Amino acid sequence: MTTALTALDGQAARLDADDALAPFRERFLLPDAVVYLDGNSLGPLPAAVPQALTDVVTRQWGTDLIRSWDTNGWWAAPVRVGDAVGRLLGAAPGQTVAGDSTSVQLFTALGAATALRPDRTLLVTDPGHFPTDRYLAQAVARRQDLEVRWVPPADLLPFLASEGDRVAVVSYSPVDFRTGELYDMRAVTEAAHRVGALVLWDLCHAAGALPLYLDALGVDFAVGCGYKFLNGGPGAPAYLYVARRHHEAFETPLPGWNGHADPFGLSRDYTPAPGIARARIGTPPVLSLLALEAALTVFDDVDLAQVRAKSLSLTGFFLRCTTELLAPLGFEAVTPADPARRGSHVALRHPHARGLTRALADQGVIIDMRAPDLLRFGVNALYTTHRDLLTAARRLRTIVREAAYEGAPAR
Amino acid sequence: MTTALTALDGQAARLDADDALAPFRERFLLPDAVVYLDGNSLGPLPAAVPQALTDVVTRQWGTDLIRSWDTNGWWAAPVRVGDAVGRLLGAAPGQTVAGDSTSVQLFTALGAATALRPDRTLLVTDPGHFPTDRYLAQAVARRQDLEVRWVPPADLLPFLASEGDRVAVVSYSPVDFRTGELYDMRAVTEAAHRVGALVLWDLCHAAGALPLYLDALGVDFAVGCGYKFLNGGPGAPAYLYVARRHHEAFETPLPGWNGHADPFGLSRDYTPAPGIARARIGTPPVLSLLALEAALTVFDDVDLAQVRAKSLSLTGFFLRCTTELLAPLGFEAVTPADPARRGSHVALRHPHARGLTRALADQGVIIDMRAPDLLRFGVNALYTTHRDLLTAARRLRTIVREAAYEGAPAR
Repeated sequence: MTTALTALDGQAARLDADDALAPFRERFLLPDAVVYLDGNSLGPLPAAVPQALTDVVTRQWGTDLIRSWDTNGWWAAPVRVGDAVGRLLGAAPGQTVAGDSTSVQLFTALGAATALRPDRTLLVTDPGHFPTDRYLAQAVARRQDLEVRWVPPADLLPFLASEGDRVAVVSYSPVDFRTGELYDMRAVTEAAHRVGALVLWDLCHAAGALPLYLDALGVDFAVGCGYKFLNGGPGAPAYLYVARRHHEAFETPLPGWNGHADPFGLSRDYTPAPGIARARIGTPPVLSLLALEAALTVFDDVDLAQVRAKSLSLTGFFLRCTTELLAPLGFEAVTPADPARRGSHVALRHPHARGLTRALADQGVIIDMRAPDLLRFGVNALYTTHRDLLTAARRLRTIVREAAYEGAPAR
Repeated sequence: MTTALTALDGQAARLDADDALAPFRERFLLPDAVVYLDGNSLGPLPAAVPQALTDVVTRQWGTDLIRSWDTNGWWAAPVRVGDAVGRLLGAAPGQTVAGDSTSVQLFTALGAATALRPDRTLLVTDPGHFPTDRYLAQAVARRQDLEVRWVPPADLLPFLASEGDRVAVVSYSPVDFRTGELYDMRAVTEAAHRVGALVLWDLCHAAGALPLYLDALGVDFAVGCGYKFLNGGPGAPAYLYVARRHHEAFETPLPGWNGHADPFGLSRDYTPAPGIARARIGTPPVLSLLALEAALTVFDDVDLAQVRAKSLSLTGFFLRCTTELLAPLGFEAVTPADPARRGSHVALRHPHARGLTRALADQGVIIDMRAPDLLRFGVNALYTTHRDLLTAARRLRTIVREAAYEGAPAR
């Protein structure tokens, strides 16, 4: 072993030995001989899910049948599961609803939020935002006769200071899905509110990975998916948070019968239900929704401050591995070294990102890449070890040294 | 036994003995000692589902993890499952996509359809349509500056003859969700096309229960849920059919990243995918979607003409049971006696509908009711027997005779 490797090896061993969260790894069914660093794309299977889902399918659906809407709490599930998500968001009960996809929740949130500022003309969002956030911002702006202004997070505060009085809604993510950079939710929320704008946060890459404080910060709207750090399964239902003070004026652009005040009254016109239930749309996919509910029990007795501390230890350690083992081979870390500016994944730039991601998978290390040249290494403090990250770095180093990968470099 | 009962008993025995579809009941896991007549609200558990879902959860998600999007066909599932539904709709492949709720699919279909007739001012729909269809028609009309015209199915053809040139879209269901009345899809579709309007059918109460001919009739758009006669499980994903000739001009009001031509290209602007994939929105709830896919195997080697014939035999027999056993006790059949005008459930009117539905459930007969005074008895030719219906009628008769039910009569 080289000196650098010996040092990193010892460090990983020490950090993992001292890890108070290590026992939580038992809450996941992770395959043997796989280093899974893609929980920021699809969380692994929580141990509680298979049995819960078997009960939902064979007993609730199979035996209790239609009665389960009442007796097994299916009807109440969107708000109940929403509240379970809300606990991870710093949201008091009754402000979060689970269901639909993040895209549909974004459409609802953007539509409802902009309608609350009818006298303003700008919808401000990140040019580097996740594609679906950008497409839906454009679609909603077109419908509501607003102009989209593309302002990078670094320029947002000066922009709001100069043009803020025209801004209806500010729509950002606290974590850049490519670089893993973490932005200051408090500063953005306060700056938007100072000029009378509303704030919508997309929490896909934040919820479950770090403490959030939606109520305390006075956030207006938030959305996110259920399948990354929440581990709810592929395409797990998304969620929508609407601050209680907006409930009465909240008008959904998607008035489905589940959001009606009297859904079985079959009345001709739409009267919204009181509270967050008015953000319900159609009948939710119960199997996926209750799998998400079971998955959220992973967070029982978990302190998110501890999760955050370990996540930073993991990403910090991987950045050291990068400096020592990978930078000499042409890898460039694009994730900030400053812990206050780091989410829960590290992105490395390399022209052969695609081929390297495939070669790593063949070696049992699962990461993902984002076009054209970023390799993403996601960590989840509830199951990732420092050893996992050293293994990933070592295997990646070997692959590059032996040129054991295929594909053309990114243009 | 009374003479009437003896005759019905013999008839049920003969009809069930001659039933060529009887073996298909094995494809469902129906609880013992329950007569399930609510498959028009939630289809029962198909025998193929539990094992399929265990594979999805433990092997595909648990072991193959993120790779399943490719290796286990998750990414292709919405169009693949859509095609499986399409086979039951008379739709050639590549025109049906599965995902989201019926409400969201209605929003998409209504928005896209009305946008194809920008010079017209009316959206015509059924005042007795299912609530979510009415709410979304009103919401889309408001957004697109259209007027909703509420025209009962019986008045639709004369209405189109007189005001048809102003009609953009005609939105109906072939089966009334309350009365079970079946309308003439061909006549409505042709009448709408004669005046240049587009047709949107909500097939929730038709798909899987009777043969459909979307392509042959030249239908423009259709939607439906996955959880009634398709047996896909609670809140199973819905589907959207868009006739191929409209694909190129189809513009979704919900441009999510799954519908992008290059979803992983992360491009800034929305470019719709070719074909029906452009109707995809966000990431679908894969567990629920693949449960639906497994459920659809119930229809393998099933002739829908045979399903329809048996369904009519079942509802016809239940109407005879009603006449002989229930009409004298104050029940009124509101479902048409004419087989050509009957869907796959029978609705009886009785002022104590709510209390009777509960009392029947206590006796192991599961039906449902629709406010204020309708009892609905759904039949599914793949598992319902004539004996089931006689049992339901007899128990209902006993309950009424003994006044063994609670609750106030409907106002």
